Amino acid sequence: MSSTLEKATAVQALKERFYDINALYSAGAIFDWDQQCFMPPAGAEARSHHTSILGRMVHEMLVADETARLIEGAAKEAAPGSEDEALVRVTRRQYDLATKVPASLVAEKLRLAAIGHEEWVVARKNDDFKSFAPTLEKMIEICRQEAEHLGYKGHIYDALLDQYEEGAVKTDAEKMFVTVRKPLVDLVADIKKNGRKIDNGFLEGDWPEAKQREFTEKIVRAIGFDFERGRQDTAPHPFCSGWSVNDIRLTTRFQSFLGSAIFGSLHEAGHGMYEQGSPAAWDRTPLAGGVSLGVHESQSRFWENIVGRSREFWTFFLPQLQAIFPSLGSVSLDEFHRAVNKVEPSLIRVEADEVTYNLHILIRFELECALLEGSLSVKDLPDAWNAKYTDYLGITPPSDAKGCLQDVHWSAGLVGYFPTYSMGNLLSYQFLASMTSEIGDQQPAWSAGEFGPTLKWLQEKIYSHGQRYQPPMLVERVTGKPMGAEDYLAGITAKYRAVYEI
Amino acid sequence: MSSTLEKATAVQALKERFYDINALYSAGAIFDWDQQCFMPPAGAEARSHHTSILGRMVHEMLVADETARLIEGAAKEAAPGSEDEALVRVTRRQYDLATKVPASLVAEKLRLAAIGHEEWVVARKNDDFKSFAPTLEKMIEICRQEAEHLGYKGHIYDALLDQYEEGAVKTDAEKMFVTVRKPLVDLVADIKKNGRKIDNGFLEGDWPEAKQREFTEKIVRAIGFDFERGRQDTAPHPFCSGWSVNDIRLTTRFQSFLGSAIFGSLHEAGHGMYEQGSPAAWDRTPLAGGVSLGVHESQSRFWENIVGRSREFWTFFLPQLQAIFPSLGSVSLDEFHRAVNKVEPSLIRVEADEVTYNLHILIRFELECALLEGSLSVKDLPDAWNAKYTDYLGITPPSDAKGCLQDVHWSAGLVGYFPTYSMGNLLSYQFLASMTSEIGDQQPAWSAGEFGPTLKWLQEKIYSHGQRYQPPMLVERVTGKPMGAEDYLAGITAKYRAVYEI
Repeated sequence: MSSTLEKATAVQALKERFYDINALYSAGAIFDWDQQCFMPPAGAEARSHHTSILGRMVHEMLVADETARLIEGAAKEAAPGSEDEALVRVTRRQYDLATKVPASLVAEKLRLAAIGHEEWVVARKNDDFKSFAPTLEKMIEICRQEAEHLGYKGHIYDALLDQYEEGAVKTDAEKMFVTVRKPLVDLVADIKKNGRKIDNGFLEGDWPEAKQREFTEKIVRAIGFDFERGRQDTAPHPFCSGWSVNDIRLTTRFQSFLGSAIFGSLHEAGHGMYEQGSPAAWDRTPLAGGVSLGVHESQSRFWENIVGRSREFWTFFLPQLQAIFPSLGSVSLDEFHRAVNKVEPSLIRVEADEVTYNLHILIRFELECALLEGSLSVKDLPDAWNAKYTDYLGITPPSDAKGCLQDVHWSAGLVGYFPTYSMGNLLSYQFLASMTSEIGDQQPAWSAGEFGPTLKWLQEKIYSHGQRYQPPMLVERVTGKPMGAEDYLAGITAKYRAVYEI
Repeated sequence: MSSTLEKATAVQALKERFYDINALYSAGAIFDWDQQCFMPPAGAEARSHHTSILGRMVHEMLVADETARLIEGAAKEAAPGSEDEALVRVTRRQYDLATKVPASLVAEKLRLAAIGHEEWVVARKNDDFKSFAPTLEKMIEICRQEAEHLGYKGHIYDALLDQYEEGAVKTDAEKMFVTVRKPLVDLVADIKKNGRKIDNGFLEGDWPEAKQREFTEKIVRAIGFDFERGRQDTAPHPFCSGWSVNDIRLTTRFQSFLGSAIFGSLHEAGHGMYEQGSPAAWDRTPLAGGVSLGVHESQSRFWENIVGRSREFWTFFLPQLQAIFPSLGSVSLDEFHRAVNKVEPSLIRVEADEVTYNLHILIRFELECALLEGSLSVKDLPDAWNAKYTDYLGITPPSDAKGCLQDVHWSAGLVGYFPTYSMGNLLSYQFLASMTSEIGDQQPAWSAGEFGPTLKWLQEKIYSHGQRYQPPMLVERVTGKPMGAEDYLAGITAKYRAVYEI
């Protein structure tokens, strides 16, 4: 709320409007968080009503003429290059995304997504793609219409991708995948040919939850997630949420595979530290928070993979893990480091290692483009999916349940979303290269449990800018070049050739 | 949300309006709950903004002309004696309470309450009533103005009391206190004269939190709180909240005095079972939930005192408590029963036993009336307070911190609230008498751990009616007479004469 002493400006009026929208949005967010973490089973029905009403209210406030009026008023006042101008840009984008698509199409998509989700759950369970195909076909058609309303200059895919990664277009994704495909396929083949078997079986066990929690809180705190301004709870699927730069909620899960809690926690903490890093003055405004899905994923993957799967990280933390779980006492640092970096082509994206992960994404991207263009029909999707898995990963799904039915995204109409995962992977290494060239190799510090300089650099270069700069501009500012694959390929090739002693 | 297939009636339109208001109100409630249970320390600032914006939105929707129009539309349609008519009554009351007092006065009260709370905290800490007196004086004046806007037929106090206990007036409270004062003062004197010392020292200890939780969850579940439709968490002060009849949240706290968690949990579970008892069809409508503070308190006190402090309850649960805390193994049932019913005049209301409790409330009621009428000025409050404690309880506060500064209520402008605590105490015994006469003495069943018939009777007679009947009408329907003190006095006198063998 504004103090009555503040100068009442057009920018301030715009902020007030978005403070209100933020309160409604945040209410939906805490309801969602609670539903994952604490809600008693019977609370689900009221919960769906509450979140749907709040979502409707957010939408109504966002698309109201008053919002447009306030944005244009602030636009006249904002100085070029100022924070205020960035606020106008971000709010205008939110307004445009919410208004360009007719309400009737939004409602139809929501309706179809609800049906689609139910059908997808059943279809996956019964390995019955045919029962889901008609709805998926309708969803693809709705995404096409959505893209036409959103508008694009080049390819229809651009409009969809831009929703998740502002400014990115299909050719960016293509360039990315064309660059990484062969080196990754070759690296996977080399690893396979090498024949080295890595044992990660010792990570399976009956690990008491309280002890797992003790360790994950320790590492999440050590890398710099601020528990004064956030917390970590347990949920069936790990996620990061929040409703203030000073109130960020992580979740993790505790399973028989010890890596699940460890790397899931580091991953979500990466998202969380990015969110905690926005300037306090931007709290509750649209300038706070991560700028895009790709940049967000670059931070979760940075802390999960580049830091958390490094030999140096475990130099420091393996003894502490062994103190908590004495049964791991005989595992050497080399054995542990190899185990958490085991590469194995597999069928399921969410279980994929760092090397094969982008091949899973590439397959989805190519299929999405083909479906949107009409060069692939929905009925032929399973065959196309399986052919690509055989081609890129060398394994063929034995069922659609473990094939093209594995991901929830398409049933919800999230088309254009997948490439942001790969962008995150590339950007994590690109940021690392810049960090190293600016402040030197940080790995020795990690060996000593010192993550402060790493976080400080990311904080200054990325987190503190919130949504002020569009993603491509942010990447240029931080790394001096557009997003590219070279740092990623160099980094990942060196790392895994070392792990596999190729 | 309404299905499009539902008949669009005026009543339905009114419900839709209140579903929206309920979503905003519920959002505020879950934010409050989270703040008490889970919020990280730094989240407080954003939290206060979020809840204040949501509160403003609730108020704006409630006082809008559209709300009045919908209420009057539904009023024309609702059949006499129907649920719909009750909905109109309840929504009209909410509208009236929100609109009768000018927004400027509401804002002034909120502003003063914020200041008053800060000052009260400091004043209590420093035992410095004088520093708080000027603000309290202003607050009393604001309450007077508020009462004038709300309107009343008899005494100015009626308008304030009615906010918390619909239909109750000052003369009801007076009649209640006049009836109970002498018998209670006499009973306290008899207990003192009797000279029997009850030992409850064995309830103090270093009780592990997890074991306390194990026991409180056991008893809360046993009496009938449904954990499929609610949960219990830890908070600094016990409370009951919720945002659906199927999602009710209890909190408790674990302290060195074992009784704190046990009786606090039973108390809040009593509130919670009342809330869980509304018909599912009324969920998220203003007909769901407890009808007044007094009736609500009757249920928390019923389960806490009448059930939870009964010899029969502990016949069943003492062995289970002893299994969890073997150090209590040598305590006999009689010793335990006496310990949890120890009567001792004390200075602090929230720590008072069942017998002296109403004397604490009586003192506050008499002082509130005198302050409002002007027969007592704020500066003379400490002396008047101390004189009444000496007179009714036989002890004189050594400081204002332990005297008239102990309660938060007045700093927040909650004047007219206190009598509902005593009404709850009276009603709990009045309901018990009706239950016993209708389905027989339930205490033998409690000895066997059977609370189902007790809950079923309360459910049918009270909980299932939500807010459908005004409190006086509900009491008449359930007990065949208006609220009175006779069942309470008979019950409490018999119980404590037995405990003290007078």
